[in-house]
Amino acid sequence: MSETIGFIGLGALGLPMAANLLTAGYGLRVYNRTASKAQPLLERGAQLADRPADTVSSGGVVASIVWDDAALESIVMSDGFLERLGQGGVHVAMSTVLPETARKLAEIHAQHGSAYVAAPIFGRPEAAAAHQLWIPFAGAQSAKDRVRPLLEAMGGQGIFDFGDDVGASTVVKLVGNFLIFSAGSSMMEALAMAESQGVDPKAVIAMLTSTLFTAPIYQAYGRRIAERHTLFDQTAIPFKDAGLFKTTAQQVESPTPIANLLLDLLKSRVEKA
Amino acid sequence: MSETIGFIGLGALGLPMAANLLTAGYGLRVYNRTASKAQPLLERGAQLADRPADTVSSGGVVASIVWDDAALESIVMSDGFLERLGQGGVHVAMSTVLPETARKLAEIHAQHGSAYVAAPIFGRPEAAAAHQLWIPFAGAQSAKDRVRPLLEAMGGQGIFDFGDDVGASTVVKLVGNFLIFSAGSSMMEALAMAESQGVDPKAVIAMLTSTLFTAPIYQAYGRRIAERHTLFDQTAIPFKDAGLFKTTAQQVESPTPIANLLLDLLKSRVEKA
Repeated sequence: MSETIGFIGLGALGLPMAANLLTAGYGLRVYNRTASKAQPLLERGAQLADRPADTVSSGGVVASIVWDDAALESIVMSDGFLERLGQGGVHVAMSTVLPETARKLAEIHAQHGSAYVAAPIFGRPEAAAAHQLWIPFAGAQSAKDRVRPLLEAMGGQGIFDFGDDVGASTVVKLVGNFLIFSAGSSMMEALAMAESQGVDPKAVIAMLTSTLFTAPIYQAYGRRIAERHTLFDQTAIPFKDAGLFKTTAQQVESPTPIANLLLDLLKSRVEKA
Repeated sequence: MSETIGFIGLGALGLPMAANLLTAGYGLRVYNRTASKAQPLLERGAQLADRPADTVSSGGVVASIVWDDAALESIVMSDGFLERLGQGGVHVAMSTVLPETARKLAEIHAQHGSAYVAAPIFGRPEAAAAHQLWIPFAGAQSAKDRVRPLLEAMGGQGIFDFGDDVGASTVVKLVGNFLIFSAGSSMMEALAMAESQGVDPKAVIAMLTSTLFTAPIYQAYGRRIAERHTLFDQTAIPFKDAGLFKTTAQQVESPTPIANLLLDLLKSRVEKA
């Protein structure tokens, strides 16, 4: 029998990733703010914890994937979490957060003798189920070695090592999200122009995404924009993510004129909707 | 022996495309404002024309690929060009121009009994030599049927039919160029942030272009930006192309906030350089 893993955060992405761990034969102790979400996992043998600390075994591995920086910090600082994880424990944090949050939390874990691995996830829930996640990760080498097979079991088809600095993998995730946001926003502007010129946006996307822009991102979002003329407006994620990119850049005085504009455009679309 | 084709415009892209036609067994009558550029083609049997009209045979096919709208219009309106092309002739125009220019020129050709096919080219000179060009085309069906094998011989690996409206293929080209320009500009902003955060831009690009952004555009430009921190500033093409996108959108009152910003950013980079 494989070891039992703590798993915190059973949202759209966390749930299929946790299910993958069960399928791979790991034991699970799970926590979610809304406990009912855990039901399908409990039916497959997972144990439900009443608080984050109760998912943790001393010196073990706990994985978390929660909404934002504040939620992640509240878990780490919750009663008993760091004390239980203790010497030799590893927290693999998979949320999309600021690099400064990751660095600060890594420092706090180190003070308690445990390791923090920053492993934010690229992929939608269906990609998790299909084992098609891309994962940049960073942290202490021994901790990375320990969680790599777990990340693969959760659905990672490719895991990329960004060294010791837990801010690094976090930055990669923010860069990727910004490039997706930019590509989607630019497709919206361009396809609106094409349609106004009497050209079928679906035909434009069909050609461009089978030639110059063969990346899945362009194919998936391009088709959606061509058919529905909108993107991103249904969810708060782009706001949060584009905001994180901008904040991260501002902290090192790196200018973000494009991110600023894209945020403004998104905001005005949401307000109009 | 295959027919003899007129070929006007022996720039970085035109020259390898014309050479491909010779290799495929076509005869060529070529014209270029700077005649010396034709030398390698003349050595392989092409004939040099003193003026655009002299490349044309009555009822034949003439191909053109020149710098901009004005250059294309001056060729079409040059002495004897339309008269020579005459009834049943086809002009396949491969320059990147405004849709309104293409539509106007198509009308003028029709008045002279000939057909205008708009077939702007996606691809760099090395892609032409390697027969890896992508070509959207539009115009009368019989004219497209006639030029399709020629476009394939010139280096087209994929030719996409956008119907009768010659403005349509032109719009596709402008959309594609804008998306390239936007992707490149966004990578510059994002990689500058990564580097300021102490993360190696080359590692970021290596991961992202082997996962989410596998399109050749991201791979080629991404590597260039990661290594040299700049892009596009060496050439006037993005100015011209981004300007065409903006003008085309303005004519149908389609807003272009992203294109406006990208043009401003490019302008300020060029002025600083």
